[in-house]
Amino acid sequence: MAGTKKNYNKLALALHKKLKGKLETHLKHPLKHKDDWSTMYTPGVGAVASFVAQKPEEARNYTSKGNSVAIISDGSAVLGLGNIGPYGALPVMEGKAAILKAQAHIDSWPIVLATQDVDEIVATIKAIAPTFGAINLEDFSAPRCFEIEKRLKAELDIPVMHDDQHGTAIVVLAGLINAFKITNRKFKDARIVIQGAGAAGVAIAKLIKLHAPEVHIVMLDSKGILGSARKDIAPYKKQLIKEGVIASDKDGNLLQALAGADVVIGVSGPGTISRHHIEQMAGNAIVFALANPVPEIYPEDAARAGATVVASGRSDFPNQVNNSLVFPGIFRGALDRRVQTITDDMKLCAAKKLAALVKRPTAGEIIPHISNPKLMKTIASAVR
Amino acid sequence: MAGTKKNYNKLALALHKKLKGKLETHLKHPLKHKDDWSTMYTPGVGAVASFVAQKPEEARNYTSKGNSVAIISDGSAVLGLGNIGPYGALPVMEGKAAILKAQAHIDSWPIVLATQDVDEIVATIKAIAPTFGAINLEDFSAPRCFEIEKRLKAELDIPVMHDDQHGTAIVVLAGLINAFKITNRKFKDARIVIQGAGAAGVAIAKLIKLHAPEVHIVMLDSKGILGSARKDIAPYKKQLIKEGVIASDKDGNLLQALAGADVVIGVSGPGTISRHHIEQMAGNAIVFALANPVPEIYPEDAARAGATVVASGRSDFPNQVNNSLVFPGIFRGALDRRVQTITDDMKLCAAKKLAALVKRPTAGEIIPHISNPKLMKTIASAVR
Repeated sequence: MAGTKKNYNKLALALHKKLKGKLETHLKHPLKHKDDWSTMYTPGVGAVASFVAQKPEEARNYTSKGNSVAIISDGSAVLGLGNIGPYGALPVMEGKAAILKAQAHIDSWPIVLATQDVDEIVATIKAIAPTFGAINLEDFSAPRCFEIEKRLKAELDIPVMHDDQHGTAIVVLAGLINAFKITNRKFKDARIVIQGAGAAGVAIAKLIKLHAPEVHIVMLDSKGILGSARKDIAPYKKQLIKEGVIASDKDGNLLQALAGADVVIGVSGPGTISRHHIEQMAGNAIVFALANPVPEIYPEDAARAGATVVASGRSDFPNQVNNSLVFPGIFRGALDRRVQTITDDMKLCAAKKLAALVKRPTAGEIIPHISNPKLMKTIASAVR
Repeated sequence: MAGTKKNYNKLALALHKKLKGKLETHLKHPLKHKDDWSTMYTPGVGAVASFVAQKPEEARNYTSKGNSVAIISDGSAVLGLGNIGPYGALPVMEGKAAILKAQAHIDSWPIVLATQDVDEIVATIKAIAPTFGAINLEDFSAPRCFEIEKRLKAELDIPVMHDDQHGTAIVVLAGLINAFKITNRKFKDARIVIQGAGAAGVAIAKLIKLHAPEVHIVMLDSKGILGSARKDIAPYKKQLIKEGVIASDKDGNLLQALAGADVVIGVSGPGTISRHHIEQMAGNAIVFALANPVPEIYPEDAARAGATVVASGRSDFPNQVNNSLVFPGIFRGALDRRVQTITDDMKLCAAKKLAALVKRPTAGEIIPHISNPKLMKTIASAVR
């Protein structure tokens, strides 16, 4: 399939080498004349420093803090590439920072970490937090990501969001809402299979269940269905069963999970779903193959196997179900309204608003395109 | 004296509030068309991430790392304002980042810390180091700054410089070289008084001594001369005596230290030197009053008291002896030549080159102006 596409790998390598990174800093006011130096820096900056020291809440009004977001990763789960470390993560984090600027006029900087220890990560992010207006956690592997986010949300006075979880879950729910309209499905009757039990899978299951408590969700990790026969289920996955987020009445592999299923959401890795798998699903099947850059199954193959609605996480196919659609708006709203926490209600609201942006959903358009001019403001308005 | 000047405090507060910070991010390539998204971000960025993960040294060529410097402070010794914490430090650090961009085309981001614990500071900076091409430590109080810099230099593979120490020392030495020319002095006969035994004072004493081992330096802290009668001298100050950097043959206060002295270098705090103090000095006295934003003595007062060469750290007086003159060039050179350590030889070389930039030094021009077009390249060429 990749052969029918432009060679984006080659193009991306050439562009990155030419640019030497995608992001740069600019001054909002020139440092040219003597008066520029005396107001932007010393002696005038001393008065600003004293003022902000006395009223730290004014840092948002007098410094870059108010419009800045740190994009932080330890490189432990980068795209679908796995644990490639901080240097490998850097081009991706810089890309997220570029998206924040292009989509939401937010000034952000990537920060990649030399540690993958949870306590050290939490301590580091707490230490640098005064600099920023919000923290975007990115590509931290499960289950560490859950603890890191939970602790930081409890201990920091600025919003913290793990985008791989919540950004992805919002876009998936929005896509499903429209895919269900097209295929005349109702959440209460739907059978959804989530292939992948990492950060994204867990957050997607939780948000769908919050939206529609009657929905039936089966989840698989690399060893198969998280069912009652399994004795090796990690505690955070067991918790999903205990809380009733996912059903555990079935055992087996992906082929068995998909028999008669309405929806499969792939958040696992490259090439893990075959045409044969899709052929087991109910008619008018919905297939979201979201692994990046190489999906679980290429969209054309899913369609040939009988799927009616097909989505991927990539920008070069229709229906890009990618958290890039929502995280800029979420952070824009959080910064502008100075909220301290991104709540579940905000996420549900953002998903519904995102779905509603597509006036007449079709199989080829279940989700707004990233270039939709109303996108950013619509999502931002969900954060209040 | 301040009354004869523009009200830069008021102007700076107004400008900062209007701008909401001095720094912003820009994209080096637009994110507009589908191909932009596919090369700047997914799927193409995946190939860049994989490539850099395999060859981490290529992060400098394919990401912002190669041209980026973190400006890091814990706010413990901001300008001459003291321990005003991270929020108060942020406008100053953002100013330094703006200077790096304006003077040396370096993309840097301020990072202010929520901790003043040395171990936590070192751990935090080590954790975020993979992001950056170099680390500029700023406004850390003594003696913690010495340990922080020493540990980071030993443990990181990128250059680390505490600008308050080394940037300041380089500019002071350059200014002295030219001031000595004007007043027909030789370092070997000179009696220099350094008022202030913090980060800047210590580094200045060391660099002058390195340049001219025969020079006679007396240093004072807030309790007086670091002399043999003192029983309360902190270990890091005692070390200076032990190493022969400063002389301890004299005791007393500033008035006594200045009797017959050729040079006084103030790196302490506002208003700590009076006209009466200056009147005790030798003829053709040299006065560097570098506290910022309010100097130890205003230049007009020092001149009225008989000083021939007068310098301050501010941009609104002649002879601005400020580390802003050198740190952009130092980091430009370090990034371009990928040096791992800023050595003493580089600092001495930078001081001599900086002094030589002034072809015919006069009392009103001992140091190049910050707008000198040769400044940045000249300093950068000292780092090799």
